[in-house]
Amino acid sequence: MATELNSNPGLRFPTGLGTSDADSISLLGQDLAADLMGKVGFGELAFWLVANRRPTPGEVRVFEAVLVALADHGFTPTAIAARLTYLSAPDSIQGAMAAGLLGGGSRFLGVTEDCGRFLAEALRDGRTASDIAGSGARIPGLGHPVHKVRDPRTPVLITIAQEEGLYGPHLRLLEGIAAVHPKKLPLNGAGVCGAALADLGLPVEMLRGFALLARAAGLLGQIAEEHRRPIANDVYMTVDRNAVYEP
Amino acid sequence: MATELNSNPGLRFPTGLGTSDADSISLLGQDLAADLMGKVGFGELAFWLVANRRPTPGEVRVFEAVLVALADHGFTPTAIAARLTYLSAPDSIQGAMAAGLLGGGSRFLGVTEDCGRFLAEALRDGRTASDIAGSGARIPGLGHPVHKVRDPRTPVLITIAQEEGLYGPHLRLLEGIAAVHPKKLPLNGAGVCGAALADLGLPVEMLRGFALLARAAGLLGQIAEEHRRPIANDVYMTVDRNAVYEP
Amino acid sequence: MATELNSNPGLRFPTGLGTSDADSISLLGQDLAADLMGKVGFGELAFWLVANRRPTPGEVRVFEAVLVALADHGFTPTAIAARLTYLSAPDSIQGAMAAGLLGGGSRFLGVTEDCGRFLAEALRDGRTASDIAGSGARIPGLGHPVHKVRDPRTPVLITIAQEEGLYGPHLRLLEGIAAVHPKKLPLNGAGVCGAALADLGLPVEMLRGFALLARAAGLLGQIAEEHRRPIANDVYMTVDRNAVYEP
Amino acid sequence: MATELNSNPGLRFPTGLGTSDADSISLLGQDLAADLMGKVGFGELAFWLVANRRPTPGEVRVFEAVLVALADHGFTPTAIAARLTYLSAPDSIQGAMAAGLLGGGSRFLGVTEDCGRFLAEALRDGRTASDIAGSGARIPGLGHPVHKVRDPRTPVLITIAQEEGLYGPHLRLLEGIAAVHPKKLPLNGAGVCGAALADLGLPVEMLRGFALLARAAGLLGQIAEEHRRPIANDVYMTVDRNAVYEP
Repeated sequence: MATELNSNPGLRFPTGLGTSDADSISLLGQDLAADLMGKVGFGELAFWLVANRRPTPGEVRVFEAVLVALADHGFTPTAIAARLTYLSAPDSIQGAMAAGLLGGGSRFLGVTEDCGRFLAEALRDGRTASDIAGSGARIPGLGHPVHKVRDPRTPVLITIAQEEGLYGPHLRLLEGIAAVHPKKLPLNGAGVCGAALADLGLPVEMLRGFALLARAAGLLGQIAEEHRRPIANDVYMTVDRNAVYEP
Repeated sequence: MATELNSNPGLRFPTGLGTSDADSISLLGQDLAADLMGKVGFGELAFWLVANRRPTPGEVRVFEAVLVALADHGFTPTAIAARLTYLSAPDSIQGAMAAGLLGGGSRFLGVTEDCGRFLAEALRDGRTASDIAGSGARIPGLGHPVHKVRDPRTPVLITIAQEEGLYGPHLRLLEGIAAVHPKKLPLNGAGVCGAALADLGLPVEMLRGFALLARAAGLLGQIAEEHRRPIANDVYMTVDRNAVYEP
Repeated sequence: MATELNSNPGLRFPTGLGTSDADSISLLGQDLAADLMGKVGFGELAFWLVANRRPTPGEVRVFEAVLVALADHGFTPTAIAARLTYLSAPDSIQGAMAAGLLGGGSRFLGVTEDCGRFLAEALRDGRTASDIAGSGARIPGLGHPVHKVRDPRTPVLITIAQEEGLYGPHLRLLEGIAAVHPKKLPLNGAGVCGAALADLGLPVEMLRGFALLARAAGLLGQIAEEHRRPIANDVYMTVDRNAVYEP
Repeated sequence: MATELNSNPGLRFPTGLGTSDADSISLLGQDLAADLMGKVGFGELAFWLVANRRPTPGEVRVFEAVLVALADHGFTPTAIAARLTYLSAPDSIQGAMAAGLLGGGSRFLGVTEDCGRFLAEALRDGRTASDIAGSGARIPGLGHPVHKVRDPRTPVLITIAQEEGLYGPHLRLLEGIAAVHPKKLPLNGAGVCGAALADLGLPVEMLRGFALLARAAGLLGQIAEEHRRPIANDVYMTVDRNAVYEP
């Protein structure tokens, strides 16, 4: 090989995540085999990987409750897209999962990040709940297309955060906004998740990422069910057989 | 920046594709602006990029006929997946296109590559049409789930290849197999495309890639139509409203 | 199958793109085999699919010049990502292409859409070149990180548009802005492409899509070259061997 | 809307995963808010979603140890591809994660599935360790490109499986093969993960999916670190500045 790839004095790529040599594997400065495997839960590790600090048990409980809340919402557009992709390319499960995650954009999975970010900016700017509620602007996390009266996830997640002593300024501001908002809209559970994650000190730029991680588990469930009891071909046929040509 | 990124004596990444400096842009050893833009068609360039040689006008005609034949097949699973992804994440058109391409696997877009590869291997091994037809094995490119009598693309593509003097051993072998096959199956147009591309001397490992390139144009059309006259939300609602819980 | 998938009186999915039955395949209201294959170029078809009208020969020439200009820029982050993905999953060429397209976001491929959209909005609002140039705001399409004096694609594309009588208000406004801008920045070729596409009447929401289509051809070239003469493992090794643990 | 999307007598899409109505959200037949959030861990839920049964605490411990083992291996090709994609399209974190997952194919993440599947087929066919070891065929899970003597994950995962009473026929066969294999190769930790997952009764077709889920957490960590302390632009520049044109 023409290229000299060994340790090159001019190049340096720092990382605090995984490194390894012939005898050992490190992750986050820990010995992966001796210190992490069997001792750290998967959700705990995900938190640690992003926040670059090990969470407390209470933080893990809130964090995993959020991931559980966001994992699967049934036949969402992203779940259907993943199943159709698995139908077309069953040899490439990574493609089906990727296709499902790609729907995790502004419209369907975005409210978690949007709500957390909105609250973080409002707190930074010193805005109050009544100021925000009275502004007339759309507030991410307020209202839900299906759960028009009450999103069942909302009180449960708030209770868990309170039990763990992790009910902080983001959740407080969000509840405060809902309490004084003229439209009496319910708090969207996915938005509350964003507030809870922000109260855990997780970076708001990564909140959508946690929704995607949660959804990765849900998509795997969708793909496994598609494997056991397929519906994607029926979806395809339903669309194709009812296609109508219109210029 | 700690890292010295300028030209590094130990590193060397060769390419025959695009390079540029402050004043010029080269592509395939040509001056992009002076020699290619306005002088080379897009299909011609795509052929050149993959085959590393400029195609003749006849080769371009066959090649573009293949791309046209494969661009869009209506509401395929991949088209529906792209539309659902665009519905979920309309701000990220690259995600919708990627989701659509990810269905380009073994089942729906694979026959082009499978047929070309099958014929190339058969020719390499000196097999004859009657040997293959009599083997009882499934032959990629023979038969079509919808066009059970005749795929309308097949005679047209064969005629174009003949007109351009590019009807070669792969197309000949494929037609030969169909002629003697006991089941009287029609030649699948997408499979014929693979044979035609192989007769152009294109590498069989890249044949699926040409189907994907063709499909990229079709997906763009699907996304543009979804933008103008959406159906993805109706697809989603049709599935979601008819979901039935079964353990 | 429990589900009745045949034509269902309550369902209707309109499309003006591809439809087919046992004997024929239609695309854009044309007979695919009789009217399109061998008669319509691939770039021409891509334009037609998105714009829902057949372009004139002059429009095809400008359009294909844009696609050629945007197809490949060498070892961009997206090209490297595609090659690394092909290294990891060589059996799934669709994954490598998708990974490459996913970098087609705001930073590297976005200027085409951003420039076209900016000009379209400025024209709609009746803004003049001097008003815009004097506003102090960043103008998409003005300036280039490498081509600091002149982007060689710019004059060529403008000349082609003029030759074809397709130099319209978007290109005129963009040139006008550059002429009076105090910083004397060159016009970015990718931005000029966006202006030229907008002058063709193509929807500004789809401009990034054309950049992605062009790039799909370039990525295919990158993957084919990676297959012939790989560099991705060298890239990986260069990074891995020079990784340094820092908490 | 012309289309009647409400519950349609002819259509039926069964699912055992998520369903919801105005007042409640169910997942896996449980009340998501009352029965799962705060009570079920994220790894536990992922297992349940795929296996369609709730795992025991011992199964959760083995399963999460596997996910932790596979989450991140530093600057792998997939991690670099995800970072380059984030560099190009920072507004679309789902694209960066998807690009990273797309490298989860046959070469880098495939050994988990390949090993589990190989062992499952060998057990089904009643093959013995010495029969397999003596066959001369390549055995997925045996040998590692970096850990040439011992993969530190291997003994730890086997011990955890034994502690939880979940050391079953797949792990036993794999250890048996290694013990009698003439080449004295170490057991690859990622392969052992596949054997351990197969011993949990998880479907072998989904094993790659678990590796992808684990990697989703690792990719999120890579993207978060790229956000805090970027290296992707240095990678890009290292390649671009050392590009050499060769036809």
